[in-house]
Amino acid sequence: MNDRAVVLVSGGLDSATVLAIARHEGYACHALSFDYGQRHGVELVAAARVARLAGAVEHRVVKVDLAAFGGSALTDVTLAIPETSTDGIPITYVPARNTVFLALALAWAETLEARHLFIGVNAVDYSGYPDCRPAFITAFERLANLATKIGVEGGAIEIHAPLINLTKAEIIRRGTELGVDYAATVSCYQPSRNGEACGSCDSCRIRRAGFQVAGAVDPTRYCCRTGQ
Amino acid sequence: MNDRAVVLVSGGLDSATVLAIARHEGYACHALSFDYGQRHGVELVAAARVARLAGAVEHRVVKVDLAAFGGSALTDVTLAIPETSTDGIPITYVPARNTVFLALALAWAETLEARHLFIGVNAVDYSGYPDCRPAFITAFERLANLATKIGVEGGAIEIHAPLINLTKAEIIRRGTELGVDYAATVSCYQPSRNGEACGSCDSCRIRRAGFQVAGAVDPTRYCCRTGQ
Repeated sequence: MNDRAVVLVSGGLDSATVLAIARHEGYACHALSFDYGQRHGVELVAAARVARLAGAVEHRVVKVDLAAFGGSALTDVTLAIPETSTDGIPITYVPARNTVFLALALAWAETLEARHLFIGVNAVDYSGYPDCRPAFITAFERLANLATKIGVEGGAIEIHAPLINLTKAEIIRRGTELGVDYAATVSCYQPSRNGEACGSCDSCRIRRAGFQVAGAVDPTRYCCRTGQ
Repeated sequence: MNDRAVVLVSGGLDSATVLAIARHEGYACHALSFDYGQRHGVELVAAARVARLAGAVEHRVVKVDLAAFGGSALTDVTLAIPETSTDGIPITYVPARNTVFLALALAWAETLEARHLFIGVNAVDYSGYPDCRPAFITAFERLANLATKIGVEGGAIEIHAPLINLTKAEIIRRGTELGVDYAATVSCYQPSRNGEACGSCDSCRIRRAGFQVAGAVDPTRYCCRTGQ
């Protein structure tokens, strides 16, 4: 068995849990993050911390200029982050983000000769993004096996999405069992410079409710707006 | 009909022909090139020239650091470009390149609300790359329709690969009919700084043979090594 895996690590709660699961399953984990023009660098600092704490073999940050295309409140400073729930696909959606991220993870997997990719997408508490659904993951796996030298010449490439059918509370329970330190993670769409969460964006709301439902202590450092 | 298209333009012969075909079919073409850590910038200069000559609406160059992963003679200066044909997938293959490029084209297409992507892959004279085959294109089209807001909410996204079943000679004949100026293109894997082709790499050999078979004048500027 080739036990190398490329694990997408954003610095958030979900991908920290995925990394812990991949390590628990015995994979040598190569953690990958992207500097994609997101508004803040706080999550990349958190990603490095998460990778180190989980015992990843290495952690790379690759630059890819998604902000060049605009269209998302996560990369475009002229668009406001919504502070209440919205119907449909929200403005925080980054066009084709998971497609781009998995494509780059696949490129690294080819050079590492790794046949396993891990991604923390979630179809339950997923903010309505189309590229977080099981059908997307299945389609990408099929593509990966047609697109690559390792897929064509060697064994199958597998895309692992171990959180895809879990609620946020179930994710938190699983990570807690595996010893994930969620204080090291940042999920907020608009954290302060020192990494405090706003407490009011979609991501904060889903995360906070997850800790409540899981009956776990929420270690998130919130800024002044948490009273909401 | 939404007649906007994102067209991948590398600066080479194939993508210049694709752009001419897309324009001929009436699409408003948004040309996209990548600064992906390739050894030379000559092809990006050629891409800008090709986009301008073809009347593209705009031309963007997006940075994506594929060289961070290594593994290809096109991005890794420690690996030599082969000057004779090789069996199997050659060292000039850039891991998952077309997957990454189409993923980024898809991201731009989403923000433009364009439903058409054009790529100059070719399964006949294709150097043995896995991501140049029809099955790869079909799998990417399926993925694109699952991965995106426009795919989910609106009509279908189409990936056009008009060269996929053409020989190099047929591509050259088609482009010539459409008025493509091939002197503006650079196909060589190791051109000189002023854009002269080496005449001996895989790409040069395939291109030169294409002009011979097409019975067309080869306008390529070769450097001193062309005597080979």
